[in-house]
Amino acid sequence: MSAFQDLMQFERDTGALAQVAGRLGWDQEVMMPPGAGEQRADEMAVMEAMLHARRTDPRVGEWLAVIDPGDLDDEGAAMVRQIRRTYDRSRRVPADLASALARLTSRAHRVWAEARADDDFAAFAPTLREVVRLKREEGAALADGGDVYDALLDDYEPGATAAQLSEMFGALRPRLVALRQAVLERPQPPALQGTFDEQAQMTLARTVAKTFGYEMARGRLDKSVHPFTSGGADDVRITTRTDALDPFNCLYSTIHEVGHAAYEQAVRRSYRFTPLGQGVSMGVHESQSRIYENQIGRSRAFTSWLYARMTEQFGDLGLADADAFYAAVNRVKNGYIRTEADEVQYNLHVLLRFDLERALIAGALEVDDLEDAWNERFLADFGFAVDKPSDGVLQDVHWSAGLFGYFPTYSLGNVYAGCLHKALRSDVPDLDAQMAAGDLGAATAWLRDNVQQFGGLFAPREVIQRACGDAPTEAPLLDYLEAKFGTIYSL
Amino acid sequence: MSAFQDLMQFERDTGALAQVAGRLGWDQEVMMPPGAGEQRADEMAVMEAMLHARRTDPRVGEWLAVIDPGDLDDEGAAMVRQIRRTYDRSRRVPADLASALARLTSRAHRVWAEARADDDFAAFAPTLREVVRLKREEGAALADGGDVYDALLDDYEPGATAAQLSEMFGALRPRLVALRQAVLERPQPPALQGTFDEQAQMTLARTVAKTFGYEMARGRLDKSVHPFTSGGADDVRITTRTDALDPFNCLYSTIHEVGHAAYEQAVRRSYRFTPLGQGVSMGVHESQSRIYENQIGRSRAFTSWLYARMTEQFGDLGLADADAFYAAVNRVKNGYIRTEADEVQYNLHVLLRFDLERALIAGALEVDDLEDAWNERFLADFGFAVDKPSDGVLQDVHWSAGLFGYFPTYSLGNVYAGCLHKALRSDVPDLDAQMAAGDLGAATAWLRDNVQQFGGLFAPREVIQRACGDAPTEAPLLDYLEAKFGTIYSL
Repeated sequence: MSAFQDLMQFERDTGALAQVAGRLGWDQEVMMPPGAGEQRADEMAVMEAMLHARRTDPRVGEWLAVIDPGDLDDEGAAMVRQIRRTYDRSRRVPADLASALARLTSRAHRVWAEARADDDFAAFAPTLREVVRLKREEGAALADGGDVYDALLDDYEPGATAAQLSEMFGALRPRLVALRQAVLERPQPPALQGTFDEQAQMTLARTVAKTFGYEMARGRLDKSVHPFTSGGADDVRITTRTDALDPFNCLYSTIHEVGHAAYEQAVRRSYRFTPLGQGVSMGVHESQSRIYENQIGRSRAFTSWLYARMTEQFGDLGLADADAFYAAVNRVKNGYIRTEADEVQYNLHVLLRFDLERALIAGALEVDDLEDAWNERFLADFGFAVDKPSDGVLQDVHWSAGLFGYFPTYSLGNVYAGCLHKALRSDVPDLDAQMAAGDLGAATAWLRDNVQQFGGLFAPREVIQRACGDAPTEAPLLDYLEAKFGTIYSL
Repeated sequence: MSAFQDLMQFERDTGALAQVAGRLGWDQEVMMPPGAGEQRADEMAVMEAMLHARRTDPRVGEWLAVIDPGDLDDEGAAMVRQIRRTYDRSRRVPADLASALARLTSRAHRVWAEARADDDFAAFAPTLREVVRLKREEGAALADGGDVYDALLDDYEPGATAAQLSEMFGALRPRLVALRQAVLERPQPPALQGTFDEQAQMTLARTVAKTFGYEMARGRLDKSVHPFTSGGADDVRITTRTDALDPFNCLYSTIHEVGHAAYEQAVRRSYRFTPLGQGVSMGVHESQSRIYENQIGRSRAFTSWLYARMTEQFGDLGLADADAFYAAVNRVKNGYIRTEADEVQYNLHVLLRFDLERALIAGALEVDDLEDAWNERFLADFGFAVDKPSDGVLQDVHWSAGLFGYFPTYSLGNVYAGCLHKALRSDVPDLDAQMAAGDLGAATAWLRDNVQQFGGLFAPREVIQRACGDAPTEAPLLDYLEAKFGTIYSL
């Protein structure tokens, strides 16, 4: 066999083991007995150590050294590019730093959870300080002289830079603040009323998942505390949750996860277990979950179909008609929590975190000043004050887990979803008529053909640009939000 | 670190990975989407290859070479003994034979399933011939000049020999044949009548599992096509099945699996992930599942408690009283299928297979003559003829999977259960009163303290002998069966 074939076999085996590790993660959240936590942590640690050893295996370096990318086709060259990137990054971080970070973030997660329960940021601050210190070290090792935050960001969004995102987000923020203010000055449409059987919610969630093209034969839908998607290729599982008072929580969590899962299910079969065999970045992944959830799932057309299904399932919803249902689905109201935010306000939550975490990594903001900085920024953008740390600086798990560079990919995903939605509408002129009939075949096929099938073949920005014809900007998202909420709230 | 510590760390990591592979097996039977089969096979193959590589890793040989067992305590010496045994056996089988066997048995399973569906032994015979040929080769490699069948048996029951088992089983057979005949000449007691809600069966199964000491916080109970137990230490999962017409299927499958699971849950915590960290052999494992299921679960005393619980759950069972319920639980009737057999006939099914498979491996019986040999022996022991291959020679999966040497451990487990039951009754004189009150605390504690906690510390026969005080023989099982069924059938 050639070095390339040897390398690919090695990578496919690593990919299969990574799938196994991912399945353990699913099991832990959905099926694992409560008393098995410590044992599972030990099992995961061995799997992770083995995966790390394979990713930094010197044989990978030897294979890479003798492969000439010029001898390969586009797919082969993309494989080698991805493998080299992972190999170089993995080897740049000293083993003792990597294991110190693993130990610290495992402990930090517990400290954060307790501090959040006690609403006590000071109890978390010393640990977070240590996380920031080690993440700066890791970023510096990865950056190799370049920008430290960019080096961390690259884990989630290869090729993106904070400067580029700042420019995009800088254009987003004032128009979102203005839109938010305008909407909240208007009278609120009525909300959904009543209680909704939780098993019936799951039944409807299954129907909706299939409507969005999720292949149940290659996945499954369960409940978990936090909804998530897990796995790749022929075994992509999603979870949702139910709340008797809020069926939208179950339904839109399901649609969001179906967006992620459909992406994984649609990647070309021949890429399975390879570095091209999954969604290319967090931002592109989020573009799929968000266009499914928002631009399609919360559209006037699709909600009219959903209104009929919900009325069939639950009887009278206490809403006058499909217009009232559409307004109820898209209600904008004050809230502290990012994960519960509506389309208008969601990105303001993210931009706040992006600016703060960049300042932390750059050393321009100290952890001791983080709570004040959070509260000040929140008041400025949202117009009311944070009431307690669990509604503010302690609400998200990310920093305790060391995930600096992750937050901006949420908003980048929304920006990409805006671009894709514009292109989709242009390519499928009667999209609204189809969605109103509950027919999402053309929409999901467009996304599959133009984005999802490629997996890791193209760079993240490139795949969006190829799908849309233009370089991605924030303009389509802003235009869409202003038009949509302008209509709902009669601005 | 010393060589012993290095070796133990390596073994613990291997043990953790083996737990992960086991969890995948559970997932495959209970949770996996139907379309994920091929992908899962690939994932399992990589896990198995990795486990095999670790078990035959030359470093293990180097560590073993420098460790002096005289420097170790009893537990350390037992660890090293087990590791050496696995290492030596794994390395004796040539890699190309091992992979040929893996490929062949994977194919043979499909061929067998089709042949069974078509009731066509001739369609399976050529493949089985090849399996027997390769198993002989494997046995010869393992035997290293010793007995080939014993070498295969050693995989499931370390230290046991066919000669020893033959003597035991030779004493068992005539008395079981005679007991069977005597019982079947008597009038049949009434069977259970009615249909039984399957969710209610699962609810009762959970209650019964807890009554037998299964720790739900370190396990879970689900449904699967064939009941099984999976995992070790703090994550030991069981499955059962339901049949609306036969709630005993669900209940006694659950109790059987709880016997296996309780063993795994009870092994000393410090043995976790090590070669001592699981049940020591298939025979000892089966002794636990069978004493839970039969000597306890099907006793007059316990069934009176169960009768009350079933009446609470399902109302009238169509049986006069607890005596009639006890007789219904223990009905002996003609049947072809081993897995559905009662306590009187079960071992006759196993003995038949043991004699035939020994003859196959020894070359004293050819595969072409196997069906006739089966049918002849069945007629001799059971008094009626096999009607079709799926009720005869094609009924069990074992030979297609290459599991020669597995069958006798079922009967050995029953023999061990007989010995343990005798000793248990002697140590817990008011066992019946406790069981009638649904209190299995003393019985399960006795098994935990005298058998289960030791995991792999002692050799299989030794652990039974230590628990019972005497070397195990078939006499207690026969005495128990003759007394029990003599009473039920008024012999």
